[in-house]
Amino acid sequence: MITSCTNSQIKFLSKLMSKSKARREEGVFVVEGWKMFLETPDNSIKKVFLSNYSTETWSHDIIEKIEGLERNGVFVEEVSNSVYKAVSDTVSPQGVLAIVNQPKYSLDSFLQSDNPLFIVLENIQDPGNLGTIIRTAEGAGVTAVIMNKGTVDLFNPKVVRSTMGAIFRVPFIYSDDLSITIRKLKECNINTYAAHLTDSVDYIRPSYKEGTAILIGNEGNGLSVNISSAADYYIKIPMQGKLESLNASVAAALLMYEVYRQRRI
Amino acid sequence: MITSCTNSQIKFLSKLMSKSKARREEGVFVVEGWKMFLETPDNSIKKVFLSNYSTETWSHDIIEKIEGLERNGVFVEEVSNSVYKAVSDTVSPQGVLAIVNQPKYSLDSFLQSDNPLFIVLENIQDPGNLGTIIRTAEGAGVTAVIMNKGTVDLFNPKVVRSTMGAIFRVPFIYSDDLSITIRKLKECNINTYAAHLTDSVDYIRPSYKEGTAILIGNEGNGLSVNISSAADYYIKIPMQGKLESLNASVAAALLMYEVYRQRRI
Repeated sequence: MITSCTNSQIKFLSKLMSKSKARREEGVFVVEGWKMFLETPDNSIKKVFLSNYSTETWSHDIIEKIEGLERNGVFVEEVSNSVYKAVSDTVSPQGVLAIVNQPKYSLDSFLQSDNPLFIVLENIQDPGNLGTIIRTAEGAGVTAVIMNKGTVDLFNPKVVRSTMGAIFRVPFIYSDDLSITIRKLKECNINTYAAHLTDSVDYIRPSYKEGTAILIGNEGNGLSVNISSAADYYIKIPMQGKLESLNASVAAALLMYEVYRQRRI
Repeated sequence: MITSCTNSQIKFLSKLMSKSKARREEGVFVVEGWKMFLETPDNSIKKVFLSNYSTETWSHDIIEKIEGLERNGVFVEEVSNSVYKAVSDTVSPQGVLAIVNQPKYSLDSFLQSDNPLFIVLENIQDPGNLGTIIRTAEGAGVTAVIMNKGTVDLFNPKVVRSTMGAIFRVPFIYSDDLSITIRKLKECNINTYAAHLTDSVDYIRPSYKEGTAILIGNEGNGLSVNISSAADYYIKIPMQGKLESLNASVAAALLMYEVYRQRRI
């Protein structure tokens, strides 16, 4: 059992939770909580830290997963409650933290899909919004989520938690330069739509039955001029009342589900 | 200038921010931040507390509002930065807190509206979800939001903040007994739809052009059997992938905006 926060494994774990640079350099991230742990593919799990190690209270699924990991030589270690609480990112720590390999995808493998649906995010800042967008993207059948480097780190523990497991199932791609990526999408005959408040049509008007990419910008400022002007069409979500805007994850959900609606009627 | 946290005004303000019982008994709540303050109707504002009182940096709108309030005899007082920070609920305090009258509405006044749209919430727990639902409800043109007593307090500072001002514009009603309220809606020929995962039809299938009420349940457990069984119809949002559910504020948004979509095509 690890009982000290100065233990090198624990210092490494803490660093992975707080520093996106460390996560990027190591190509891993941290999963916390039983539900997320059970959703994590076994072959992605590198290390598991448990507090209140108690096979008596664990469900059959948990016991089977942990025993399987141990059989495959995965590092599984108990930590004291005080160490666990010091490292945990949650208000009610659940007793499991795992270091997990970051999934890797390449855009090229999705460009030839049948009528793909891409969501392109520029500078989304709120971890809860990004996590919720990834979660909704799974439900709406999005082919892949494309993000620029200015978007909050997908492997931030708050983002991971709010994806509710979708982080393991929705492909995502980081783009070094969104305008180059958008050009690439257009070359593959994918229609690109920028969520934009001016000079735009009601989002329910276009047909999204063919290859579609929807561009969504920052919570406060929307899309940059550079990126929105690269899109084929401008769309907007009409609002009654005096509202200035919708929440970014709500706006993204309405757009993704409008595509999905049109594709199933 | 108030420089002590033991000042009776400050103690009252702190109590209003942290205790829903105190807010209910006094019929008031606290608005924080310049944007929300500017959105607050002048005749609702009872007291204003300012830190960094500086007419030099304030916009014309702010100066005009504060001067108008002072002319009308509203209590406006400066507080020291340390007192302000001790009371503030936000990470980056903005320098304005106001005690504001809770708006009051009666369901009866909305029942005879032309094809009303009601959102009925049972036991929504997350303040961010409730605030986002109120915000989206304004955009979708919802007639009123109906909540049971088990729903998180609408006047919780986090809820107020995430409504982005919609709290002053979207009518809301607290129901002591949702099943009685639902019966009342049905008696007025309002079609009631429960968001429900089983025995339900795709939410895009019904026509919502007539009077509509949509029932949305708790984040983890959905609607109680008692309430969902009172509804006329069960509807569900289809999900691809392996997702168990969508975020509650996303699900509410998709349902409200489907009604709005049908009503504008």
